[in-house]
Amino acid sequence: MFQNSCLSVSPDASDAACLGALRVGLIGTGVVGSGTCQVLQRNAELIAQRAGRPIRLVMATARNLHKAAQVVGPGVALVSDPWVLVRHPGIDVVVEVMGGVGLAKDLVLEAIAQGKHVVTANKALLAEHGAEIFAAADACGVVVAYEAAVAVSIPIIKALREGLAANRIHELVGIVNGTSNFILTKMQDEGLSFAAAVRLATELGYAEADPSFDVEGIDAAHKTALLAANAFGADVPFARVHAQGITALDPWDMVCAEALGYRIKLLGIARQCADAIEVRVHPTLVPQAHWLAQVQGSMNGIWVSADAAGPTFHYGAGAGSQTTASAVVADLIDVARCGAAGDAGRAALRVPHRSVQPAALRRWPVMPIGQVTSRHYLRFELGGHPALEAEWPSWLQAHGVELQHMAQVTHPEQAHRKAWVGLTASMRGDDLTRALASLSEQTGGPAAAAVLRVEDLA
Amino acid sequence: MFQNSCLSVSPDASDAACLGALRVGLIGTGVVGSGTCQVLQRNAELIAQRAGRPIRLVMATARNLHKAAQVVGPGVALVSDPWVLVRHPGIDVVVEVMGGVGLAKDLVLEAIAQGKHVVTANKALLAEHGAEIFAAADACGVVVAYEAAVAVSIPIIKALREGLAANRIHELVGIVNGTSNFILTKMQDEGLSFAAAVRLATELGYAEADPSFDVEGIDAAHKTALLAANAFGADVPFARVHAQGITALDPWDMVCAEALGYRIKLLGIARQCADAIEVRVHPTLVPQAHWLAQVQGSMNGIWVSADAAGPTFHYGAGAGSQTTASAVVADLIDVARCGAAGDAGRAALRVPHRSVQPAALRRWPVMPIGQVTSRHYLRFELGGHPALEAEWPSWLQAHGVELQHMAQVTHPEQAHRKAWVGLTASMRGDDLTRALASLSEQTGGPAAAAVLRVEDLA
Repeated sequence: MFQNSCLSVSPDASDAACLGALRVGLIGTGVVGSGTCQVLQRNAELIAQRAGRPIRLVMATARNLHKAAQVVGPGVALVSDPWVLVRHPGIDVVVEVMGGVGLAKDLVLEAIAQGKHVVTANKALLAEHGAEIFAAADACGVVVAYEAAVAVSIPIIKALREGLAANRIHELVGIVNGTSNFILTKMQDEGLSFAAAVRLATELGYAEADPSFDVEGIDAAHKTALLAANAFGADVPFARVHAQGITALDPWDMVCAEALGYRIKLLGIARQCADAIEVRVHPTLVPQAHWLAQVQGSMNGIWVSADAAGPTFHYGAGAGSQTTASAVVADLIDVARCGAAGDAGRAALRVPHRSVQPAALRRWPVMPIGQVTSRHYLRFELGGHPALEAEWPSWLQAHGVELQHMAQVTHPEQAHRKAWVGLTASMRGDDLTRALASLSEQTGGPAAAAVLRVEDLA
Repeated sequence: MFQNSCLSVSPDASDAACLGALRVGLIGTGVVGSGTCQVLQRNAELIAQRAGRPIRLVMATARNLHKAAQVVGPGVALVSDPWVLVRHPGIDVVVEVMGGVGLAKDLVLEAIAQGKHVVTANKALLAEHGAEIFAAADACGVVVAYEAAVAVSIPIIKALREGLAANRIHELVGIVNGTSNFILTKMQDEGLSFAAAVRLATELGYAEADPSFDVEGIDAAHKTALLAANAFGADVPFARVHAQGITALDPWDMVCAEALGYRIKLLGIARQCADAIEVRVHPTLVPQAHWLAQVQGSMNGIWVSADAAGPTFHYGAGAGSQTTASAVVADLIDVARCGAAGDAGRAALRVPHRSVQPAALRRWPVMPIGQVTSRHYLRFELGGHPALEAEWPSWLQAHGVELQHMAQVTHPEQAHRKAWVGLTASMRGDDLTRALASLSEQTGGPAAAAVLRVEDLA
């Protein structure tokens, strides 16, 4: 019923209409899949002029075929069984935009085994199973391209693997979850509570019905793990990546941070240390004047510091239908240019999946979060007792916490609510936790109401 | 005397030490050449891991060979005659960083004719002679790579040709000359005169002894022409690119612009219109809150608006020894990955020199500056006469100039100096010029003391 003449008549592509075209099979016709169809159709001529040959969607699979038929348009074979698609000899490259790490993983591995290139937007799949998937792709001489998995409108994977390939990357710090950044922006600018900001994000379509992957930092951690892998040419075990979201964040801390000259952002941080790497996601204070502090709403921004190029900053939309399609189709164009699958001679010269040749992949340990050194922001509610406030810095110091800045901040709407806030010198997280516990125990004073890390990004 | 064993013993690269390496010949050992040597040496292992094979500098040419020997280090053949280098069979790719459009052009064309890839930082050469050079490269199946020609630490050529390849680019607006931006920043922040800011830039090494190419907008125009060629897949005749620099800019206009919520930047603007393209460089008012307004000092920033990806912003250093080398070496890594020169089958699939296959290159007319439509900033010195100031908007309106904002601004240091400034509705430059001439003639009132274009970049 939904058969495409090109595919059904000549699955080996001897049909003149298909000759030379890159033949694409699409798994998933939701938000990203439909955007991909739109971009491939609208810019078909330009894409062929750039890629050197046409890129043609020839088959798609989705749960609802009648709905999918509307998305993919005429001339595209529709099949209900995705296994038919990944095994079809008339397809050169499989676009996986169904999501999830179960069936999607099996389908991607089968497509690879069948000698097909894969383009995917699936950050969870690659962050958690990338090592296995990339190894399979390397063994079969195919490419797994995933620009659409991170900060979609920003070609940051390409920037790390190619544009900055001459550099040793020192650090990469990014706002890579648009949903969280939208929520933080609303909390900051309009004083909304976390819950109210989440409701607004859901109403406006910036958050899914269940936003936990976004607000708990998991999505950002997936993306940061992929960025770190490319920045450092490393195999980054996702289980070691620290992910802390914004669910516990008090808008009051945003006011206090501002009083100190900072903004709170959910940052993905990847840093190269002597014999380890830091890969972590958590709410973080950044200086108000820094580019990252100015990324508002659902936008993404990534700061990269490299030994030759110095600092660079990359900004754009992080999600959306056609914005994600921009990255999916860019990957298809790269695949169209990279020659036939299975060509082992060429494969060695292709851009490696994690920026370095597989044999050169490093396995640096990921530093446990407690061992990571940084400045910290502390908020105490000292009840506005001047004596206690005056003594507080020396008490902290006596327990090994050196303060560099401090302020008393009155709540803008609750005049009785006063916070004592400070920024520590650079210290290990573990040491601070111990010091604060000891301080609280020995003085009977209040525990810290908030502890957050600071990144000055000088 | 300066002979490299690898080259002299086996110019055909049968020497085991050279096998598989990409063999580089370097023309020019000045600022960029020495940075390239440093990066290739320092990151040699990482570069090989990324490129899939070593990248080895095997020969260099420079005017002063003894000085050059210090730059390139041991094991590199030094020759005084660059023609020997571009014709040497032991070299796969020529890096041209000598500059100029005379000898450099001849050497690049000869290297191409000899079947060698070329990597160059020479924006003047490619903006003025790109059509000829790229055609020669296409005919010979070699690549001319030039990421280092524009905004060096930002991989913007790659972003346009590859990362955003799925998109129709609507507009691209960039700060692409760091020297001018440094001077403007000093004029804006410290109230320096143009001449004083130039002196400071020269003292600090941000400007050359003769900074005219930079401050007259020629360098920015070269870069904008190259960016436009890639954004629109077009052959951009450089002679049609409007270039106006910052030499005539009065710091007083910066103060007035600020009063209206704008900053003045030297922008390179490339925009796709219905049947033409705009490619122009001139001092321009941009909203203070826009990313471009926040690019300070010698840094570069480029704003791109595309149909699928939406807006993206790209920021980094625009000049410098190792920053430029970052782009040169990234291009070498691309060349290392793109296969042997002269392979015509592969050549069609390589990234095209101006983002689309040569046969698809468009030849849109470049719109003459007078026909370009935009809002304009006007400053009049009306001598602080209230009656004249009150009547001025209606006089302008009577001559076809509709005002959208206006303000009276008193000079911060010269209280007697008052400016009447306004922003017009969008109109053609020609029409404004005519209207202002007619106004001046008919009223005998003062001519506009300053007219500048405005880009709101909404």
